[in-house]
Amino acid sequence: MKIISNIKDMQTRCLAARAAGQTIAFVPTMGFLHEGHLSLLREGRERGDLLALSIFVNPTQFGHGEDLDRYPRNFERDESLARECGVDLIFYPNAEAIYPADYATYVTVEGPLTTTLEGTCRPTHFRGVTTVVAKLFVIVQPHVALFGRKDFQQLAVIRRMTLDLNLPVEIVGMPIVRETDGLAMSSRNVYLAENERKQALALIDTLGLSVQMVRDGERNVSKVLESARQRLHVEPDLTIDYVKICHAQTLAEVETVDQESVMLLAVSVGKTRLIDNGSILC
Amino acid sequence: MKIISNIKDMQTRCLAARAAGQTIAFVPTMGFLHEGHLSLLREGRERGDLLALSIFVNPTQFGHGEDLDRYPRNFERDESLARECGVDLIFYPNAEAIYPADYATYVTVEGPLTTTLEGTCRPTHFRGVTTVVAKLFVIVQPHVALFGRKDFQQLAVIRRMTLDLNLPVEIVGMPIVRETDGLAMSSRNVYLAENERKQALALIDTLGLSVQMVRDGERNVSKVLESARQRLHVEPDLTIDYVKICHAQTLAEVETVDQESVMLLAVSVGKTRLIDNGSILC
Repeated sequence: MKIISNIKDMQTRCLAARAAGQTIAFVPTMGFLHEGHLSLLREGRERGDLLALSIFVNPTQFGHGEDLDRYPRNFERDESLARECGVDLIFYPNAEAIYPADYATYVTVEGPLTTTLEGTCRPTHFRGVTTVVAKLFVIVQPHVALFGRKDFQQLAVIRRMTLDLNLPVEIVGMPIVRETDGLAMSSRNVYLAENERKQALALIDTLGLSVQMVRDGERNVSKVLESARQRLHVEPDLTIDYVKICHAQTLAEVETVDQESVMLLAVSVGKTRLIDNGSILC
Repeated sequence: MKIISNIKDMQTRCLAARAAGQTIAFVPTMGFLHEGHLSLLREGRERGDLLALSIFVNPTQFGHGEDLDRYPRNFERDESLARECGVDLIFYPNAEAIYPADYATYVTVEGPLTTTLEGTCRPTHFRGVTTVVAKLFVIVQPHVALFGRKDFQQLAVIRRMTLDLNLPVEIVGMPIVRETDGLAMSSRNVYLAENERKQALALIDTLGLSVQMVRDGERNVSKVLESARQRLHVEPDLTIDYVKICHAQTLAEVETVDQESVMLLAVSVGKTRLIDNGSILC
């Protein structure tokens, strides 16, 4: 396993691998790897001759007052986990190389895909995501890139960007990996105090309860959402950013639940922001 | 010479050429080729094993009320000129393929490089240019791409975008090719009536006069520009969009002429918009 910080070195290495006929699988991350990331790496190991992992806490996707400075980092632990998953190349650039002083170029997906849900609470978030992912795709030159479905909207935005820019990359969305009690794996879970950790289970509980309502015959989105909000409001330290039921591809809000409907939730528990989602008619 | 309209076909062909170790030289154009374009193709022929030309009148770089609909086109003539220059592949997509109905992604260079000069008169122009050039680079996968220096600001913007997005493409800026009387070659020159064609020579005349002033010792930009405007105002059907002297890389306006100074002009002669530029201290 090789660790490469220099952009040109990484790109040269990846272009050479491509020219040699190797298939490149790529998992872009912000590090502090958990089982969710590892599931992507294991799938990537199956799909690529060369497996590349990037670790980069991308400043442009954090808003003012968000947790850029305290975002958890542990490169040595990540390195050892990557080695266990059979990673060939870790790309580990610094922010000054990715965004030099006179940096000026942004890749933006416009319209409802980026202005709803996370885009409402975090107006510059997706601009940061699409810019860095476009750059990483150009540097790493992957044939296939793997993303977790926990960031459901991010996955939709990246699919749109990849298609629109004609990037020759297959985008694979992988299932959410959860703790045994159902909390979706997230690097941010370490922020949670014990009492908050318990309240965070309201997310998976709400998803389960909503699925059950639909299974019992309810198709009216307003009624499902009302019940979801009631469940979330039980937790004293939990505030709702949004709870919505949307079309899985367009992310447009729907009025009636169908096969394509996904429930998306964003809440804060204490100071920690958490998201989750799931199909609502399974 | 092969003509390819399908995006996937073009990309597959170019990726295969790259994998086979071929160097790809690329000249993106809006067609209606003139000697300026041909000089790029001849240089491209020297630099690439495979020479690709794209012909695409890009709607996103035209503003409301600009000349998208009447922009001159002549594919058969372009095809025969391309053949004479040794082009291997013409990429000739249609607008619906490049921008499908649900298209949403734009590449933008932010800041002074795109808000001054052409950016003032044409606020969405460079967004259209950088978006289509990024897409074309991803489709054609060139090692080297050639642009004319007549679109001086465009060249600076594309250099910035290429660097920022880490695109592994060498950007080559080629000298302006002029008619024997000095008018810069442009597909739009066909719009000019005979009387306008004569007045359009004020551009090269103004550039020559300004260079002479500087050669005679004048370094004060205001004085050079005042004299330039006076010369342009002589023409009854010519209106000035801008005449500026800027730093060649940053395009920031300067107060004193030095080695890095470029004069940039944009005027309308009748209904035809023309631009030109030149180093002012040679």
